[in-house]
Amino acid sequence: MQIDRKLLEEIISDHDRLVFDHIPTEYLSDALGHLHGEADALLFPKSTVEVSGILRYAYENHIPVTPRGAGTNLVGSTVPIKGGIILDLSRMNRILELDEDTMTAMVEPGVLLQDFQAYVEQRGLFYPPDPGEKASSIGGNISTNAGGMRAVKYGVTRDYVRGLEAVLADGSILNTGGKQVKDASGLSLKNLLIGSEGTLAVITKCLLRLVPKPEASVSVLVPYGDLQTGIQSVLSILRADVAPTAVEFMERKVVALGESFSGIKYPRPDAGSYILLTFDGHRDEVEANLQRVRELVLGDGAMDYIVLADPRQAADIWRVRGALVKAVEAVSEQWPVDIVVPISQTARYIRFINELEAVSGMRMVSFGHAGDGNVHLCVVRDGRDEAAWQEQLHRNMEKAYDKAYALGGVASGEHGIGIEKRPYFLGETPSENLLVMNRIKDALDERHILNDQKSYITGGPKNAEVI
Amino acid sequence: MQIDRKLLEEIISDHDRLVFDHIPTEYLSDALGHLHGEADALLFPKSTVEVSGILRYAYENHIPVTPRGAGTNLVGSTVPIKGGIILDLSRMNRILELDEDTMTAMVEPGVLLQDFQAYVEQRGLFYPPDPGEKASSIGGNISTNAGGMRAVKYGVTRDYVRGLEAVLADGSILNTGGKQVKDASGLSLKNLLIGSEGTLAVITKCLLRLVPKPEASVSVLVPYGDLQTGIQSVLSILRADVAPTAVEFMERKVVALGESFSGIKYPRPDAGSYILLTFDGHRDEVEANLQRVRELVLGDGAMDYIVLADPRQAADIWRVRGALVKAVEAVSEQWPVDIVVPISQTARYIRFINELEAVSGMRMVSFGHAGDGNVHLCVVRDGRDEAAWQEQLHRNMEKAYDKAYALGGVASGEHGIGIEKRPYFLGETPSENLLVMNRIKDALDERHILNDQKSYITGGPKNAEVI
Repeated sequence: MQIDRKLLEEIISDHDRLVFDHIPTEYLSDALGHLHGEADALLFPKSTVEVSGILRYAYENHIPVTPRGAGTNLVGSTVPIKGGIILDLSRMNRILELDEDTMTAMVEPGVLLQDFQAYVEQRGLFYPPDPGEKASSIGGNISTNAGGMRAVKYGVTRDYVRGLEAVLADGSILNTGGKQVKDASGLSLKNLLIGSEGTLAVITKCLLRLVPKPEASVSVLVPYGDLQTGIQSVLSILRADVAPTAVEFMERKVVALGESFSGIKYPRPDAGSYILLTFDGHRDEVEANLQRVRELVLGDGAMDYIVLADPRQAADIWRVRGALVKAVEAVSEQWPVDIVVPISQTARYIRFINELEAVSGMRMVSFGHAGDGNVHLCVVRDGRDEAAWQEQLHRNMEKAYDKAYALGGVASGEHGIGIEKRPYFLGETPSENLLVMNRIKDALDERHILNDQKSYITGGPKNAEVI
Repeated sequence: MQIDRKLLEEIISDHDRLVFDHIPTEYLSDALGHLHGEADALLFPKSTVEVSGILRYAYENHIPVTPRGAGTNLVGSTVPIKGGIILDLSRMNRILELDEDTMTAMVEPGVLLQDFQAYVEQRGLFYPPDPGEKASSIGGNISTNAGGMRAVKYGVTRDYVRGLEAVLADGSILNTGGKQVKDASGLSLKNLLIGSEGTLAVITKCLLRLVPKPEASVSVLVPYGDLQTGIQSVLSILRADVAPTAVEFMERKVVALGESFSGIKYPRPDAGSYILLTFDGHRDEVEANLQRVRELVLGDGAMDYIVLADPRQAADIWRVRGALVKAVEAVSEQWPVDIVVPISQTARYIRFINELEAVSGMRMVSFGHAGDGNVHLCVVRDGRDEAAWQEQLHRNMEKAYDKAYALGGVASGEHGIGIEKRPYFLGETPSENLLVMNRIKDALDERHILNDQKSYITGGPKNAEVI
């Protein structure tokens, strides 16, 4: 197709915000760089009006559009597989309003999570969603319904989106939700857009819910002889009404990689696994919960109960946890998995993965969010050549996803489906669900210009000339 | 249209679960009985297979279907305005599974909220959604995204639905969500169905999230000289990180009606308004929060701070609050409103309503969920004849809804739109939103058999013979 450069230059007036030639490679891929696409234009809009103008043009001319935020996604969502326009929202990065009375903030989608968290915490407020990648964008977090570390107590990104402004495929602007807390007024379009991976609309404003910043936050590292004992222990913690903020599990072998990568040492290197917990709230309530859980986990067979009272030590321990994927990547290319299973099935699922690792001979290191059943696996390439790697990876991942669905889980807890997980997601999802999702796609983006052939999208564009 | 009785009798084998002649009047209306429809059949399915069979038949024959649960709705959602089939889910009322490991329960949609709450609380668990009407059904709660008293701390029904089984208009069965906590796997059909008022599908199974039952729950009654002082005080409570479970406000004049109705007396009848608070959690944390709030509200001008330490007294005080709508109805017919505005606008909105009451000469008693901006008004008919009542009601409600939207609110916080609020909802909602909602309706129920012309639905059925 032919991009009309002149027309796009009328929509975006600053010429440094349009790139037509020599689009840098990083914009043609995702954070992992395994897949690359091609594009005719890379655009950096700075306003809703510009986004709307670009989409209207793309819609009228059947030009594919691939939206992107900070480009930290891991499943190929930002790869422009159909060419056309890359719509980069990273320059729409202003915090527009902080309303302390309703405890909400209005931000543009390109604001980075880490910047937004710092901004509100300086003002005594708190934005709980906390995926591992803090340099991700708020718009991207919403598009994948990002979860992260604090979901056990606070829930996921969906629970903190009060409203969205979004531009539909034809350029029309939708305002959904608002500062009010409750809503029983028609279909929840806001909730339909959350987690839709840029397939239905381009988010241009995000109204986010905040909570008061907790008075205290204390983490505890609990070493266990083996992973199974640790994960079983999590179930009793969750049932005990002690409101843990985060409950992470890590095998010792992945912590060892993290130690080498970061230069930080964990206590009790004789452990087989660790559970890393955080409690937050009023100081006295945190103290009381720390005491309750100490008795519980020592009764469940924990080797120790190490309260990370020194904030620098706590930060170090969390830094290793946050860098585990990078630590694995420093050793070898890896394929990330963020399968989620019911929390009661986590132990069984990891046992299955350990067996699969033994049988397949592929290294699979597991860690993740024990408090919500969100298992992160890194499948490690090591010395395999491309053909062997692809073949073995796919064969074993089919088994891994099969097992997750058999246990009542789904393909992705927080990364999204994108391109990389499509075969597993499409293979496991009931046809009725896929049919309904595709009907909704057709209803909102009949020409399939937005992120086509990603995630659930299996049909093609309709021929109708008007929506 | 002609209903094929013989065919329906093949789908539902027990003949006492089909009514064709002399359908009792209560099934042709909602809880208020202001509007009545007509129907050709009243069916009481007992299984998903029966629901699916009925819908397939209705779909093939373009027969309107009006689903209903316990019939407690207040906005006409269950009025069969287009004739056809009334699908009553009240006999699908089994609790199918309690899974203590994942803290979830699977129930049929006809289970009553009060029965379900009692069931889980006996087992040390807790289902937080708590609308005023406890004899409502879980399926109905989900269809209107019911909110209620505890939304300040715990959120609304949406936050406690992990999964749904639902039958689409053509009879096909959809399974969405599951026991896992996180989900970033395709469009969230579950969230689209929540709050859709039976316009997209008929819910047949509900997988609900539970939490540990709080160790202690203590309520406090705080009298103020006037309503404005009380509502301003709520904002400082919400910002104080004291996690109130419920924050209700009541004008003295509506409490006086409640007292006459129930025979229960409130302390401090010299107050102009009350705030009724609950705190729950561990006993020591509840005590600490009670103390924090005492200082706060006395500083904000409260007349007193009455901790309802005796559970019977607390239950009495809450009973009056729960029966306020009925107390008003005992005096006169009334029209219920459940507008929601940003919490920072509650005081301003109620001031507006007080002025409207003075100017219009219509009694408007207000109470509701101060912690989330969900204002309940009862507009009282008193001695007006039908024509004067309808004319004055509509004229003043246009102003009331206009003002709510101008302040950033929406038409309904928890009752839904149904028929009664359609003119206000359709008049205030941006056309882009209505267009998208109707496109989704057409995509999922092209023949418009499910609850047609309710809530957001403005278009008519499509002529296509196949979906």
